Amino acid sequence: MKEISKLMDYRQGIRVVDATLRDGGLVNEFRFDDEFVRALYNTNLKAGVDYMELGYKADKELFDVNKFGKWKFCDDEAVFKVIGEKKGDLKLAAMADVGRCNYKEDIRPKDESPFDLIRVATYLNTIPAAVEIIEDCVNKGYETTCNIMAISNAQEKDVKAALEIICQSNVKCIYIVDSYGALYPEQLARIVDFYSEIASKYGKEIGIHAHDNQRLAFANTIEAIGDGVNWVDATYSCMGRGAGNCGMELLLGFLKNPKYREYFAFKFVEEYMTKLKADGVVWGYDLQYLATGLSNQHPRSAIAFTNEKRTDYAEFYKELLAQE
Amino acid sequence: MKEISKLMDYRQGIRVVDATLRDGGLVNEFRFDDEFVRALYNTNLKAGVDYMELGYKADKELFDVNKFGKWKFCDDEAVFKVIGEKKGDLKLAAMADVGRCNYKEDIRPKDESPFDLIRVATYLNTIPAAVEIIEDCVNKGYETTCNIMAISNAQEKDVKAALEIICQSNVKCIYIVDSYGALYPEQLARIVDFYSEIASKYGKEIGIHAHDNQRLAFANTIEAIGDGVNWVDATYSCMGRGAGNCGMELLLGFLKNPKYREYFAFKFVEEYMTKLKADGVVWGYDLQYLATGLSNQHPRSAIAFTNEKRTDYAEFYKELLAQE
Repeated sequence: MKEISKLMDYRQGIRVVDATLRDGGLVNEFRFDDEFVRALYNTNLKAGVDYMELGYKADKELFDVNKFGKWKFCDDEAVFKVIGEKKGDLKLAAMADVGRCNYKEDIRPKDESPFDLIRVATYLNTIPAAVEIIEDCVNKGYETTCNIMAISNAQEKDVKAALEIICQSNVKCIYIVDSYGALYPEQLARIVDFYSEIASKYGKEIGIHAHDNQRLAFANTIEAIGDGVNWVDATYSCMGRGAGNCGMELLLGFLKNPKYREYFAFKFVEEYMTKLKADGVVWGYDLQYLATGLSNQHPRSAIAFTNEKRTDYAEFYKELLAQE
Repeated sequence: MKEISKLMDYRQGIRVVDATLRDGGLVNEFRFDDEFVRALYNTNLKAGVDYMELGYKADKELFDVNKFGKWKFCDDEAVFKVIGEKKGDLKLAAMADVGRCNYKEDIRPKDESPFDLIRVATYLNTIPAAVEIIEDCVNKGYETTCNIMAISNAQEKDVKAALEIICQSNVKCIYIVDSYGALYPEQLARIVDFYSEIASKYGKEIGIHAHDNQRLAFANTIEAIGDGVNWVDATYSCMGRGAGNCGMELLLGFLKNPKYREYFAFKFVEEYMTKLKADGVVWGYDLQYLATGLSNQHPRSAIAFTNEKRTDYAEFYKELLAQE
């Protein structure tokens, strides 16, 4: 049982990362208008959020710029144009996906770019490529995190071996990513335990990125915080792929550092997120996502179910059973 | 950290209580049609649910029978008529609210009634009245539980004193009720701890009834299960007052006893719950409920906000601040 003082006090080391544009962009093809992005930036400033992730640094050879909004690519110039002069302590982040980015060219030296942090996303089978991007970005002056995806169906020994390799790089923080929304808090506590063992040996931070397939994104996030995880991802209105993420408004309400102010999250949700939903952008917990979470698999079949506007949950459940 | 074996195996003592009609009835004035109730009964049978709560035993002197559906009153005859011959192991329950029921007349001896379990709901200031109802019902042949509401803003010493009194009665189980949806799992773990200390002394079971104001109803329920709580309330599609309850489909997916089958929950949600929502019955997590949960207060102002179809969450947040 966690100590009462841990709930009452706060840890200086906590870093809140707003992933609305990046993970949320996966459900509207990154088509956020400039006013939305500027309002989000100003909200994060007022709410005390530490990092704002603007999207992906996607390779234009692989992804057609006409088929996505600009936050799929996060060109430095586009960011400068929309955000303007950076204010306050809010740092900017972009995600570099192993195999899907041309980091050597598209990520310029930090002093020429608006970004402070590059988040390197990798699966377990591309760790050396992730390390290569991390070192390149560190050499260019960036902070980096490494987000190892889809660990819920990986062997613990494989994850540990990967952590040993990544922790020997100059990465700042290793993220636990529950890509499938399959983990219960008790399982997450055990995963944090072995991440901590390796991360503390190398002086690295740990982060958590949760999905809401089992309506546990917030619960898993605060479980991780209680276990010592310092970097926490959240999105406004839980916006994110499939079932979505940990809600920023929930997270800020939980954190006790007075710099975090959930009022501004309420205001942003009211003024901007409600409109996105009304305009037909679809995300969030529903039974198809619960079904893929329960069976610990990628949500792609549930996303297809959603896109086809199906509501025959029981039939979908049976389809998943038949696959196995 | 809980043992892995506790997640993999299951406890024989777990009892799942479907509270859809009772807590859900609070958002549609108990107007469920007979077909819905029969389908729910059959679903609970197939899904392995242990108890089905049909509603309240409300006093007709205090509540106008023309203003509510019949599940507010749960007349034995009405239940016999809708459910017919009882099947399988599914037991039936009704709630007796201290001060709002005429239990001496309306609760008949068990062998004349369809019910197996009477759940006595009480606030901390009416414990002797609760004990009176418990003993009356036990004498009539029923199992009983005692649901102490709104403990999240009570003094721990008061709750302990109440538990000592109730545990000396013939009650079977004491419920922890997070009426305001204000508790985090870490806090709940500590509450379970002192409930357990007293309950085990008297050989009583502990139950959990959670609300989803902070999207933690399911997380708090499985936290409680991990801590040794055996009686767990859930509702289909989380239907319940305000932000709603722990979802039955989530809970059945978590429990490992093979008698619980979440497929039937998926099917019921698809065929019946989706229709209720489409017909305009409103419940579930939203920012007004988060706001009252965060400030640890009764959701009545948030329910009014919902009923007025307001969406100015930020203004509502400020109204709550101004109250204090």
